[in-house]
Amino acid sequence: SGGWVPPAQAPDANSFVARTNTCGELRAAHVGQEVTLCGWIQYQRQGLFLVLRDFQGLTQLVIPQDEWSQVQTDRSAVRHVASEFLRYIGIPLQAHSHVRKLLSNAPVESVVRVTGIVSSRPPGQENAKMPTGDIEVKVETAEVLNFCKKLPFEIKDFIKKSEALRMQYRYLDLRSSQLQHNLRLRSHVVMRMREYLCNHHGFVDVETPTLFKRTPGGAKEFLVPSREVGKFYSLPQSPQQFKQLLMIGGLDRYFQVARCYRDEGSRPDRQPEFTQIDIEMSFVDQAGIQRLIEGLLQYSWPEERGPITTPFPSMTYEEALAAYGTDKPDTRFGMKIVDISDALRRWDVRFVQNVLSYPHGTAKAICIPQGVRYLKNKDVESLKEAAKSQFNQEIVDVICRPDGSLKSLLTKFLGEEQQSELKQVLNMQVDDVVLLAAGDHKRVCSALGSLRLESADLLEAAGVVLRDPTALHFLWVVDFPLFLPKEENPTELESAHHPFTAPHPLDTDLLYSDPAKVRSQHYDLVLNGNEIGGGSIRIHDAEQQRFVLEKVLKEDSEVLSHLLEALEFGAPPHGGIALGLDRLISLIVGSPSIRDVIAFPKSFKGRDLMGNAPEYVTPEELEPYHIHVSWPVAETEAKKN
Amino acid sequence: SGGWVPPAQAPDANSFVARTNTCGELRAAHVGQEVTLCGWIQYQRQGLFLVLRDFQGLTQLVIPQDEWSQVQTDRSAVRHVASEFLRYIGIPLQAHSHVRKLLSNAPVESVVRVTGIVSSRPPGQENAKMPTGDIEVKVETAEVLNFCKKLPFEIKDFIKKSEALRMQYRYLDLRSSQLQHNLRLRSHVVMRMREYLCNHHGFVDVETPTLFKRTPGGAKEFLVPSREVGKFYSLPQSPQQFKQLLMIGGLDRYFQVARCYRDEGSRPDRQPEFTQIDIEMSFVDQAGIQRLIEGLLQYSWPEERGPITTPFPSMTYEEALAAYGTDKPDTRFGMKIVDISDALRRWDVRFVQNVLSYPHGTAKAICIPQGVRYLKNKDVESLKEAAKSQFNQEIVDVICRPDGSLKSLLTKFLGEEQQSELKQVLNMQVDDVVLLAAGDHKRVCSALGSLRLESADLLEAAGVVLRDPTALHFLWVVDFPLFLPKEENPTELESAHHPFTAPHPLDTDLLYSDPAKVRSQHYDLVLNGNEIGGGSIRIHDAEQQRFVLEKVLKEDSEVLSHLLEALEFGAPPHGGIALGLDRLISLIVGSPSIRDVIAFPKSFKGRDLMGNAPEYVTPEELEPYHIHVSWPVAETEAKKN
Repeated sequence: SGGWVPPAQAPDANSFVARTNTCGELRAAHVGQEVTLCGWIQYQRQGLFLVLRDFQGLTQLVIPQDEWSQVQTDRSAVRHVASEFLRYIGIPLQAHSHVRKLLSNAPVESVVRVTGIVSSRPPGQENAKMPTGDIEVKVETAEVLNFCKKLPFEIKDFIKKSEALRMQYRYLDLRSSQLQHNLRLRSHVVMRMREYLCNHHGFVDVETPTLFKRTPGGAKEFLVPSREVGKFYSLPQSPQQFKQLLMIGGLDRYFQVARCYRDEGSRPDRQPEFTQIDIEMSFVDQAGIQRLIEGLLQYSWPEERGPITTPFPSMTYEEALAAYGTDKPDTRFGMKIVDISDALRRWDVRFVQNVLSYPHGTAKAICIPQGVRYLKNKDVESLKEAAKSQFNQEIVDVICRPDGSLKSLLTKFLGEEQQSELKQVLNMQVDDVVLLAAGDHKRVCSALGSLRLESADLLEAAGVVLRDPTALHFLWVVDFPLFLPKEENPTELESAHHPFTAPHPLDTDLLYSDPAKVRSQHYDLVLNGNEIGGGSIRIHDAEQQRFVLEKVLKEDSEVLSHLLEALEFGAPPHGGIALGLDRLISLIVGSPSIRDVIAFPKSFKGRDLMGNAPEYVTPEELEPYHIHVSWPVAETEAKKN
Repeated sequence: SGGWVPPAQAPDANSFVARTNTCGELRAAHVGQEVTLCGWIQYQRQGLFLVLRDFQGLTQLVIPQDEWSQVQTDRSAVRHVASEFLRYIGIPLQAHSHVRKLLSNAPVESVVRVTGIVSSRPPGQENAKMPTGDIEVKVETAEVLNFCKKLPFEIKDFIKKSEALRMQYRYLDLRSSQLQHNLRLRSHVVMRMREYLCNHHGFVDVETPTLFKRTPGGAKEFLVPSREVGKFYSLPQSPQQFKQLLMIGGLDRYFQVARCYRDEGSRPDRQPEFTQIDIEMSFVDQAGIQRLIEGLLQYSWPEERGPITTPFPSMTYEEALAAYGTDKPDTRFGMKIVDISDALRRWDVRFVQNVLSYPHGTAKAICIPQGVRYLKNKDVESLKEAAKSQFNQEIVDVICRPDGSLKSLLTKFLGEEQQSELKQVLNMQVDDVVLLAAGDHKRVCSALGSLRLESADLLEAAGVVLRDPTALHFLWVVDFPLFLPKEENPTELESAHHPFTAPHPLDTDLLYSDPAKVRSQHYDLVLNGNEIGGGSIRIHDAEQQRFVLEKVLKEDSEVLSHLLEALEFGAPPHGGIALGLDRLISLIVGSPSIRDVIAFPKSFKGRDLMGNAPEYVTPEELEPYHIHVSWPVAETEAKKN
């Protein structure tokens, strides 16, 4: 052991332990070898056969039926030494009858260690579906290392269990081949990313603190009471400040597989703690970060899902919104949003005319191919209702009849030529359904973007092949606005991403004259309609940063005084990105939930169902932190007094 | 970019960025090349020279003194294209006078980008101490990317600053070559560890939650209020439970570079958050873990401090206590504790006789070679006082006079032959000082072990070479007691390490009859007298675990019911270890404090002096967590009512 081992060699899974082989590796070439295996009893048949399982696979064991070993004669010398050794380590050489009894009576999922001889399976009994299906191991000695009591559910992939039960017994669920695969693949991908960043591109893996202080607007940060009365640490949502300070500290290239925290209360498929691949570089521009990430993903992408093509296509935020109604377009299928404002403006359709006269007034549509065949009437109705309830957006549907004529509320306002032009603009075929909306640009786009995805789900549920499940559509979305109007008060601005994002170099002057129009140097990475990363070139000028914080965002910059001061002491230009590791891995393994790629996830209510966290603590445990709980009853009492 | 790069290749630190080279890599072979460098102004001399610094080194720049470039003629075509490009990206082609003005006026630590031609230094002006000392770069164009305002201290290694100031401006201190080296070495060592574990031995890197619940006896765990009234998460001191549950989940080989938390209030050289290399394996024994760790350290050990020899020596806890008075012996030097009980018992020295008659009564001594020459009288007195105040242990000193006679309070009780025997037993030479103690075995050993280290410091302060600073004395300490008497109530037992530690296989029966005598399968790894890791084989039997928790430790096992239940569902035998990464790296780089190997350490009071954490929060921010602060004044008020 020890010493340098060439990296090309496959990992040795049997070093330092009692077994000679895993349950997944024995082949015909091993026939005749004496092996020791450790694992869990997958099943047992009539005291004759047993299937042993470990993380790498299954091996069939033959339970001895005779009284003593038949191989005694030609292996007696070896056996003598072996028996002495076994006695020494506490395993007496066993009569076969004892081994048979032991293995026949051990319940499934008991842990056993067996030693035996690898043998070819009798002709005709090979199992081509099993990687070890050519061999079986004739057991000589066996030891039950731990008996398993009755299970709450069977550890078989085809048995469906409720997720709550799976999470309560997470350690049992972890034995499933799916979770074993997911966690091992995750480890492998992260290791490859580290090789790329550290070994190939000189990045430094730096750990940053998770006990820090509240950031401005950090309402979703967990608090950690300190022993100083009234003072709290905060668990940061990302190492943003630290990564920038590392650049100011001359680290040049930083990365971290960073644990981050976000207290959002109950949110489906979000976790209170999550992991991001956190990266920052000095003297880099937007293109530099993009090429780095493309290389990173290409290098770390698992073979089973590869290869991927670089560079990834790029789209501006405005283009994405206009064509897909979202900043994370799923470009695996068409059904893009089409602008029909010009046509409708020309045709003088009165009620649309009014909408189009507003500053951001627009009319747009999506065309659902063969919608008449695949969508039921109630589907179309529920799409329209969803647009109304979620976006307050009225939708008009248009159907193309078999004779080519259109059926819609709208048709009475349109002549035959106009209907024909509409069909042409939307590339409408017989049996297509068009959903049409008019109103504010952003609202119309968002509503149609949402309907586009819902229609796609409906079409796929009806059997249409729309999105290739093996397709990988990476996309950079760029040129985001730097600021957005605050939802609660649209006359004020807030950062679209965070206050450290640099303005687009062409829009720097606008920052001081019309900040709402400034585009940013933020970029998002999208995969198959999921945001898997985002980053930006940062402001490295103290004056500009102060202007953004104080004049545009009207924030108290005092809480960031350390960062503002740091920018005055020779801050290099810098930028970075963070990839959401949980989501990325779940997309790679094709799992709908990030909980399937996390060893011990929390429920959507933020609870650990296995260990039962969070939990009550005693008042004495709170004392050193100078806090106490405001129990609802106590509150009521307090109000009375 | 992208694609597979052979790992043998050195990292490319210039990929994806504007520079062509770092400030540390230009050599005579680069002469004639046009290069672009980015970095910080280290110093500037009379408008003639400038030294530019980045993470990799220093390069001397020659500031142009003529009006325009002299290389125009033979490079005019190139210059035209370059000037167009520079204009396009915002850097106009500059007159040399402008470059000169820019570089002469920029304060030190300003960030600049320069382009110029690598030239040989004039003969006699080479600097052999500087890796780039053969060349200089004749600057053609320059841009100041950021001006630096007046610094609070100079970024020069030889300037001593207070640690508080260094921590307040941590981003400036990070520019020092020492911290750059420490953080880069740390990243490199951890990467090598990952290669060894993942790529060579099939370990799976699994992230475990940091928001969990309070463990029994986890009084040092930070609390995190949840949105459920009265319920708190807890930040665990280690992933102990999770790593065991992963083994029960069949993960087989787990590791994690794990962030851990410990709230100890103010403790010198401890951090509220720290990092451990956390490892767990199934089907392994103590020797297996030890060989794994020896291989791990050998593989990851930096060349500048290597090589290291394996296997490491091993010592039982009892041996370590008896010879060094501690469970983490510094074996780089002798001065071992010598047992003189037998001799004193024979000699019938009355007051010692009494002590020796107690159950654990003993008499022991250490011999400080040449103590008369190197220790002052007050040193010896302060050693004796320290033993008294810290261990309540009286010490008798014995001095060997030049004529070979002994000087001590003790001598009046000893005949000449006995004195001669004492000298022999202790190998006492002329001018040696012996410190002698009688009393309870553990107390005597602990006191003498402490005096041994203090004497060593005193000898070294006086110029004696005792411990080779380059020596690496690794040591396994094994066979710890499984339980210790509670300090506050010695009739009750508590775990010496944690309740999941397995008993020594030879002592299993004792567990039920005389648990205080049971040795454990715990092992510590010690380097040069520092504990750098510890681990154990764990209990994998539910009944045994329940017995330890309920019958021996008298703990409420309900809070660990999930783990106890898990042990009943087929838990494999397993064990593991955790290495303290911060301490390990600080020993490798020879730094006295772990704060020198952490990017953003907290002060010994747990404060971030740069960002000022922890910090006050508003009552509104506490509301979602149903807690409020018990202000001392409010408490006083409450008591009044």
